[in-house]
Amino acid sequence: QHSDRKLEILQWIMTFAIGFLTGMVALYIDLIVKLLSDWKFGTVDKSILQCSKDGCLVISLLYLLLFNVAFVIVAACLTIYEPVAGGSGIPEIKCYLNGIKIPRIARLQTLVAKSVGVLFSVAGGLFVGKEGPMIHSGAIIGSGLPQLQSITLKKINSKYSYFRTDRDKRDFVSGGAAAGVAAAFGAPIGGVLFSLEEGSSFWNQKLTWRTFFCSMAATFSLNFFLSGIDSNSWGYFYLPGLIDFGTFECQSEKTTGCHLWSAVDLFIFVIMGFIGGCLGAIFNTLNKSLSLHRMINVNPKHKIFRLLEAILVAMVTTTIAFVSAMTLGQCRKIPLKPSIINSTRSSVELTVRDYFCEDGYYNDMATLFFNPQEIAIKQLFHQAGTFSMPSLAIFFILFFFLACWTYGVSVPSGLFVPSLLCGAAYGRFVALFLEQVFGYKTVYSGTYALVGAAAFLGGVVRMTISLTVILIESTNEISYGLPIMLVLMVAKWSGDLFNEGLYDIHINLKSVPLLEWDPPTEAARMKAKAIMDSRLKVVFPQTRVASLIRLLKTTAHNVFPVVTAARDDCSAVTLVGPSQEADLQEQDDVECFVNQNNSNQDGDGNPIELLQRNLPMKFEGMILRSQLVTLLKNHAWYKENVEEPPRDTVSYEEFITDYPRYPDIYDLQIPTLDGEALVDVGAYLNPCPYTVYPETTVSQVFHLFRGMGLRHLPVVCHKGELKGIITRHNLTHEFLEEKIHEQNQEH
Amino acid sequence: QHSDRKLEILQWIMTFAIGFLTGMVALYIDLIVKLLSDWKFGTVDKSILQCSKDGCLVISLLYLLLFNVAFVIVAACLTIYEPVAGGSGIPEIKCYLNGIKIPRIARLQTLVAKSVGVLFSVAGGLFVGKEGPMIHSGAIIGSGLPQLQSITLKKINSKYSYFRTDRDKRDFVSGGAAAGVAAAFGAPIGGVLFSLEEGSSFWNQKLTWRTFFCSMAATFSLNFFLSGIDSNSWGYFYLPGLIDFGTFECQSEKTTGCHLWSAVDLFIFVIMGFIGGCLGAIFNTLNKSLSLHRMINVNPKHKIFRLLEAILVAMVTTTIAFVSAMTLGQCRKIPLKPSIINSTRSSVELTVRDYFCEDGYYNDMATLFFNPQEIAIKQLFHQAGTFSMPSLAIFFILFFFLACWTYGVSVPSGLFVPSLLCGAAYGRFVALFLEQVFGYKTVYSGTYALVGAAAFLGGVVRMTISLTVILIESTNEISYGLPIMLVLMVAKWSGDLFNEGLYDIHINLKSVPLLEWDPPTEAARMKAKAIMDSRLKVVFPQTRVASLIRLLKTTAHNVFPVVTAARDDCSAVTLVGPSQEADLQEQDDVECFVNQNNSNQDGDGNPIELLQRNLPMKFEGMILRSQLVTLLKNHAWYKENVEEPPRDTVSYEEFITDYPRYPDIYDLQIPTLDGEALVDVGAYLNPCPYTVYPETTVSQVFHLFRGMGLRHLPVVCHKGELKGIITRHNLTHEFLEEKIHEQNQEH
Repeated sequence: QHSDRKLEILQWIMTFAIGFLTGMVALYIDLIVKLLSDWKFGTVDKSILQCSKDGCLVISLLYLLLFNVAFVIVAACLTIYEPVAGGSGIPEIKCYLNGIKIPRIARLQTLVAKSVGVLFSVAGGLFVGKEGPMIHSGAIIGSGLPQLQSITLKKINSKYSYFRTDRDKRDFVSGGAAAGVAAAFGAPIGGVLFSLEEGSSFWNQKLTWRTFFCSMAATFSLNFFLSGIDSNSWGYFYLPGLIDFGTFECQSEKTTGCHLWSAVDLFIFVIMGFIGGCLGAIFNTLNKSLSLHRMINVNPKHKIFRLLEAILVAMVTTTIAFVSAMTLGQCRKIPLKPSIINSTRSSVELTVRDYFCEDGYYNDMATLFFNPQEIAIKQLFHQAGTFSMPSLAIFFILFFFLACWTYGVSVPSGLFVPSLLCGAAYGRFVALFLEQVFGYKTVYSGTYALVGAAAFLGGVVRMTISLTVILIESTNEISYGLPIMLVLMVAKWSGDLFNEGLYDIHINLKSVPLLEWDPPTEAARMKAKAIMDSRLKVVFPQTRVASLIRLLKTTAHNVFPVVTAARDDCSAVTLVGPSQEADLQEQDDVECFVNQNNSNQDGDGNPIELLQRNLPMKFEGMILRSQLVTLLKNHAWYKENVEEPPRDTVSYEEFITDYPRYPDIYDLQIPTLDGEALVDVGAYLNPCPYTVYPETTVSQVFHLFRGMGLRHLPVVCHKGELKGIITRHNLTHEFLEEKIHEQNQEH
Repeated sequence: QHSDRKLEILQWIMTFAIGFLTGMVALYIDLIVKLLSDWKFGTVDKSILQCSKDGCLVISLLYLLLFNVAFVIVAACLTIYEPVAGGSGIPEIKCYLNGIKIPRIARLQTLVAKSVGVLFSVAGGLFVGKEGPMIHSGAIIGSGLPQLQSITLKKINSKYSYFRTDRDKRDFVSGGAAAGVAAAFGAPIGGVLFSLEEGSSFWNQKLTWRTFFCSMAATFSLNFFLSGIDSNSWGYFYLPGLIDFGTFECQSEKTTGCHLWSAVDLFIFVIMGFIGGCLGAIFNTLNKSLSLHRMINVNPKHKIFRLLEAILVAMVTTTIAFVSAMTLGQCRKIPLKPSIINSTRSSVELTVRDYFCEDGYYNDMATLFFNPQEIAIKQLFHQAGTFSMPSLAIFFILFFFLACWTYGVSVPSGLFVPSLLCGAAYGRFVALFLEQVFGYKTVYSGTYALVGAAAFLGGVVRMTISLTVILIESTNEISYGLPIMLVLMVAKWSGDLFNEGLYDIHINLKSVPLLEWDPPTEAARMKAKAIMDSRLKVVFPQTRVASLIRLLKTTAHNVFPVVTAARDDCSAVTLVGPSQEADLQEQDDVECFVNQNNSNQDGDGNPIELLQRNLPMKFEGMILRSQLVTLLKNHAWYKENVEEPPRDTVSYEEFITDYPRYPDIYDLQIPTLDGEALVDVGAYLNPCPYTVYPETTVSQVFHLFRGMGLRHLPVVCHKGELKGIITRHNLTHEFLEEKIHEQNQEH
């Protein structure tokens, strides 16, 4: 009772610490990226201003290339050193929360590589975002901090071993991921829904509340320091977060009625959503082919090729941005400062770029290309001045292809912000198009840019609930709920006609057995026995050390069913171990148990023979590979001639010492003379896992498996005999669809 | 495949319709309440203005009394006619979503009584809210609309019978409840989280998305009509919802730094949360005693007493409000109109009441008492002018006790808005106190009022996640996230030291077996066999009609396990029915099955005798009472002398015709001569429900039961024998704590 209380308090403290640290990591990424960008743009700005007069713009381009290539080399080297740090990290988190272990994904080393690498990939002018890596960083903090130990730094190793179960760890990781979203977008509710959408199976109120707390801690600790550093107003929590879409206000001087959107606009939004979904699908298809190409042709070669690709991308991106801004950008008049002081508006006025233009004019293309992406998005959302339609179209096309090429290059690279920027250009283009071609006058271009951004992002990633909420929270405008939701719905629907979301594509490319939310509709009526694996590797309650070692060495299974032979003369064999109270009415069966024990000895304690002889096996429970390895490591066996077998000698603490990386069976030093000794697993097995019948429908199996977060599910018939086992692999859509195909061919 | 698609489209259409209708009901309630209130206050206003001069204020009071009593009589009569319509309805929805059927809760009749009654209870000046009833209305619409039939109006009865399962119905109800919250508070995300928090067990992405869509549909259809009717700007979606907390803006003319709250305030908020929790606990304790008293002394008596109580409450409330406004209110100067046009501010200026005061002055107490509660809340949030500390204190105390008395009187009565108003007065009082007593100058009183409102509401209802989000959405200010969350957390924690939330108290008073989120920590390590019910009522695959009728007449169980006798000479008895493919290796057992059939006949087909003889029972599956009744109703039996028993004669459509109200066994006309005939339930039973072992821990049982949304869970041992059954009653905290108590006494 008392220790439960203590554990709960510790849990809350940990949750706060995870949120706080995630906020700090996000803050550090943001500040350093700003610093690096300012340094770069400062130098290049000066050079351009001077060279515009002197005609030495090639030198400015060289400066820019030098900066960007140098930055990208740093990012690429870090990623090549720790490959898991590449990409956005969201596919990996999705897999982790789904219950799949990906090696090295949650190490301190990965955190360092990712959070340093992302600084340089973003500052290096690549079309990548820093939000995905922030979310990944949050997840790593969530996974590592409560363990109070580190694999990378062996010295960090406390003797306190709390929260060392997969479930605890996963709970903290979902908190960390939520905190990452919260910090990156200033969207605590969106963060919670993100981790629910990607990871949860069982709706757990306490966990959700803790995740929410973690998100809030991240948002507001970030906010506290941000307001302190940026506006020197410590303790006032001014700034709304790292991504600030600004305040959407309709310009009442322009249109008669002042409104953000109207019922008529909704129809246009639906069409925009449809097109956005299609554009997203094209993006995904292109990126998939490119990734396949990379997997086959680039990755197997020497590491230097990956570095060279990153450098190539950096150089092409820089050159295209520079040249197109110089030659294709249009000079537009800077609009007069509006009379009402509005912080969003004025900050937008200050960030236009006047490269290659006269005084009082700005270059629209340069404004988009030579600003950090967040500022470019804000320009598209709020710039009262106009962008020209050709500039927007060219920008969209260039950005689209370059971003598509970049995602997958071995640098840490988020996808959210580039997609938003690309989509905002598309939306703004539509607004201009409607205004100039159709003379549709009541357009508020900011809303169109936002809707375009949502449509394209939705088309690429195909998230729905969490994305809607994240965008609502980032705009801090609840009345955008309906348009954003409609657009995301339509974009997901139209995109799904062609292919999957980009994260899912990358997960599939890695052939990870991800579990979807529901089984395929055709499979729902199949039976468990049609999909279970009946080639079983089982152990007996008493097994010889030698055969146990042989079993562990020859199979990679993580769990083994424990069975006894259900012989006709003794059909009521039950296991009576110390972990199980002897049931009064089952006392008679103890004799059978002893017989059983002898029968094992006859068969050399090798359960495989039982299978070969095709005898029915009574299901007794499940034992984990890690438990067997720990038992062997602790020499928990006994000789047959000893009177009383030494039971229950391995304590719970000894079982979790090695969590989460248990020793390999080949690394264990086991004296060969002990091969004939017996190991009694009866005291350690789990006698009552969830089970299903062979005739249970796949739909029921699926929901049990997903809802209870299982890794393996024994199939036991009405008679209590083990018939097979269902693992994650038997429930993937790929496997189920194959089974349906087989069944249809049979008929 | 094709019909799945059609069903899904129909589901979405239904979801939209539910959202739309819920929005319309909310709109109608809001408009009519406004109309009635305007009528009442218009008449009374005129009279007060005149009588302040002439000194005939008693007549004004009589006018007010007349209106209020008349209105309350209407509300009370409707509630007495349909008692389920009383109260807020949220406890009932909570029960429904938890899986408990409460009679009459989801009828059209209840909807009418509730939605008409609430108009009059709110307009009648009682301290009740209209939000709870709106949520209840949404839930009724969600439950009734997809059925396309009505019990109340027999004529509404379509031949389309979709969605007639408990799961489908519950999904729609959670959508409707979410829509109700969304419409009432303009909080679509909060609505989704409300229905997740109260009802969900399994996190289902598709369902959540549909619920979200339903919320959005409600919010924006309400908004569409509201903007059209109120501002005559159809199609522009201006107004933020029914409850509008206005825009929180700090008055930069007053303090140097302009901020809503700072880090220092957070500490004060924590203390306010603690006190709010305690105040809420007192409120709950008082209301609980009062409700108990009512249950014992008022409800069993004639209906007229309930009507009289309602009238008494109305009269006392009216008189106290009038007299205290007249004698205790202070006249304060109306502040000058601020220069910047701000719609929130100006609407606040317009709703002050100048009763009993000179020109240019207003009566602070009258402003709070003689306005609809939403406007009074806005006054407390945004009124730049001051309320005096004594006025606030008196208002809080009077309102606290009157609201406590009112909740439970038989009128439709919400709890949200009264609690918010009460709490806002408390918060505003604290702000004044800090400013005047401690000289703490940087107080923004609006924030304090909001925090106070959150603290008190949190202390009363103890919701956390959804309430936080609802309040954030209603204020449309994301930066209030942290203070609101902190305050709700602390308030819940401090309130939980004393008692439960008010909704839970009322649920407990009705002794409904609600399932919590987790089992009590001490019970988690108990075994299933310790809590299961082993006094079983079972049926055989073939049972005589007579004994089936006897069983149905003597027990109220909703489900019966189907068993066969596991005799030693034939331990492998299995059931081979048409619903189950004959397994190849089990073909040998068919003979046993026939034996089994004969053995039933020996024992008069009465399985009770099996139990009495204490024979082991092999578990074959589960059959519902409704299925047995339908079988009997359709005369699905056969005579023994007929060669081939007529199997599978009752189709799925026939099973759902009577959903959800199946005929009573006493209403069935069964020819007595058929008593000896046999019913074959083998084809209809569910052969593969989820089961657990007797040694499974209660924690596992609980999560399976809650997560999979079960109503009953057979306990089957490793040998395949039925040992007992676990129902909702065996998993309530009350039952589990009793079992723990028993166990402790034994040791």
